[in-house]
Amino acid sequence: MTSQASPKIVFPAPRLERFIRSILAALGFPEQDAAIIAARMTEADLRGVDTHGIFRLPHYCQRIRAGGINLRPRIRPVRENAVTALVDGDNAMGHLVVTYAMELAIQKAAETGLAWVGTFNGNHAGAGAVYSTMPLAHDMISMYMTVANGNHMPPVGGVELILGTNPISVAIPAGEEPPIALDIATTVSSAGKVKLAAQKGESIPVGWMVDRKGQPLTDPKRAHEGFLLPIGGYKGYGLNVIIGMLAGVLNGAAFGRNVVDFTTDLSSRNNSGHMLLAMRVDNFQPADTFKKEMDRAIREIRNSERMEGVDRIWLPGEMEYYNIRERQAKGIPVAPAVVQGLRKLAEELKVADRLE
Amino acid sequence: MTSQASPKIVFPAPRLERFIRSILAALGFPEQDAAIIAARMTEADLRGVDTHGIFRLPHYCQRIRAGGINLRPRIRPVRENAVTALVDGDNAMGHLVVTYAMELAIQKAAETGLAWVGTFNGNHAGAGAVYSTMPLAHDMISMYMTVANGNHMPPVGGVELILGTNPISVAIPAGEEPPIALDIATTVSSAGKVKLAAQKGESIPVGWMVDRKGQPLTDPKRAHEGFLLPIGGYKGYGLNVIIGMLAGVLNGAAFGRNVVDFTTDLSSRNNSGHMLLAMRVDNFQPADTFKKEMDRAIREIRNSERMEGVDRIWLPGEMEYYNIRERQAKGIPVAPAVVQGLRKLAEELKVADRLE
Repeated sequence: MTSQASPKIVFPAPRLERFIRSILAALGFPEQDAAIIAARMTEADLRGVDTHGIFRLPHYCQRIRAGGINLRPRIRPVRENAVTALVDGDNAMGHLVVTYAMELAIQKAAETGLAWVGTFNGNHAGAGAVYSTMPLAHDMISMYMTVANGNHMPPVGGVELILGTNPISVAIPAGEEPPIALDIATTVSSAGKVKLAAQKGESIPVGWMVDRKGQPLTDPKRAHEGFLLPIGGYKGYGLNVIIGMLAGVLNGAAFGRNVVDFTTDLSSRNNSGHMLLAMRVDNFQPADTFKKEMDRAIREIRNSERMEGVDRIWLPGEMEYYNIRERQAKGIPVAPAVVQGLRKLAEELKVADRLE
Repeated sequence: MTSQASPKIVFPAPRLERFIRSILAALGFPEQDAAIIAARMTEADLRGVDTHGIFRLPHYCQRIRAGGINLRPRIRPVRENAVTALVDGDNAMGHLVVTYAMELAIQKAAETGLAWVGTFNGNHAGAGAVYSTMPLAHDMISMYMTVANGNHMPPVGGVELILGTNPISVAIPAGEEPPIALDIATTVSSAGKVKLAAQKGESIPVGWMVDRKGQPLTDPKRAHEGFLLPIGGYKGYGLNVIIGMLAGVLNGAAFGRNVVDFTTDLSSRNNSGHMLLAMRVDNFQPADTFKKEMDRAIREIRNSERMEGVDRIWLPGEMEYYNIRERQAKGIPVAPAVVQGLRKLAEELKVADRLE
């Protein structure tokens, strides 16, 4: 978790991407695979999803060095037809599995109009929107769901942590406007944000967590005594379960008690599952017409009457779109503690690049 | 809105279904169409979604008598390939449009494994789960989204009501267990529940509504001074917009300012849009294997440790499943005020059946 208070060190995106590639190469990844993983991680940082980019590298490396990842995977469909595929990730890095699977979905949707690809035997893949936005360049709508790599929530009425923050991401092309790219967990807060508040000695808002009696828990140092809450109570709980079943159970991937907590268990097979969908918009409308209509709808929302004191109404994914532009131009700010960890990692692995 | 306080009058489901058919026939619907609409409405009542069943009949009739519905529609695909179809509802009753569209999705998915059907030029179709559960008998997973027929919510940061309660429903087959059937609006509360609280003179919980300054609004009599809130703040707002774009914009259906409030405007074309998806589970696993795995996952959640004082953990759609069984056996309870309205309707339309 990065601290908001300390001044960040800024790196050009290609600089960080190259560093990640060097680290992964030193760990034994084939050059091409290292490049794909580094690209996906850097994209998360460009989007401003700092918790899912280079910040994760030391943790990924721990798992890789503990033998928890297959460095020579054969990622492949084990069931396939013209519009669907079930992909065995062969315990590869999640970034490789989901990139492969989304490219397959795009290829199938290009040919048929629509595709659903499921994966199992994968691992943590970073930020969902990095993948759901891949089909945008092909004028496709896209959906992404995954089972989170750790359980932090009980079902409504329960106290046993058997559900994750199971996120969903949906991307829709637009014309002149930034494309829509929703990327949300189905819990009110992430476990990471609670940890951050604990580090800062701050309290957390009512509604983020409750204790085992269902009473609001606002002291993040007591987080272990309670659990995260789903968005909208039983509604978010329901969405969470649906996502887990479509990305997990349907694919023969982990869900519920067989989810491995990837932060505490470094070597057990994660068997992460992902669900990916791609749909050509020209199934229903010429792509240009659709994108003009999207621009109209987006502007209608953005330009609608604002609440007093509100400067701007944001559409899903719009902030991240501007983050990408800004960070491509000005670089990616990284917390000093994170940079220190990365330098230590380079030293341990005898990688020449020390991010100096 | 039915009042919880007054004792209900109980009717066997076929009795209500027959009554709805008679009313619709008297209004000029072809017998077969009346039968489909009556079946879908009764199914909503059987599920316990009392606000989306026979309760709606007087309102539907007002619209039909005002000329707001096409009684002789030609519902048909205007764009179609092996896996997708865009269906023109020809301003038919929504129940007919969505039934047609879901049957088309099932047929396409049976042949290819997967199908996405969009509709436009439709109307209010009642309860989402009535449709999303149709593919279950074919061992298919299903998704349903729609743009609500009225705007009760602004975007996050806004005060202008340009978004509806846009619901999503997802159904997943199980084996011996009740199938999963999520059916949720993306707002914390419906407008109807707020009206009901106002009628009863009760206050509404913090979190349901805010006023135009963003302050909690707990007096439902002041509902017109504020607006409904999305589940999980910007998360539910994002989901809401996505649903509106996939069910509305993509299909050339109403979204945003061009949504017609069907409770206050009885004659303007609604141009309701729906999004339907069906996917054969045996794309990825033999159906029996999958359903056994679903049973296991469902039982794991239900049997996990409960919070003190909680009798049972429920899965999405489970309560409705038991409602169907109970109401099929014991009948459907209807509020006296609703029955009175239905009797008046029968009298006006000179329908012999008076629900005596």
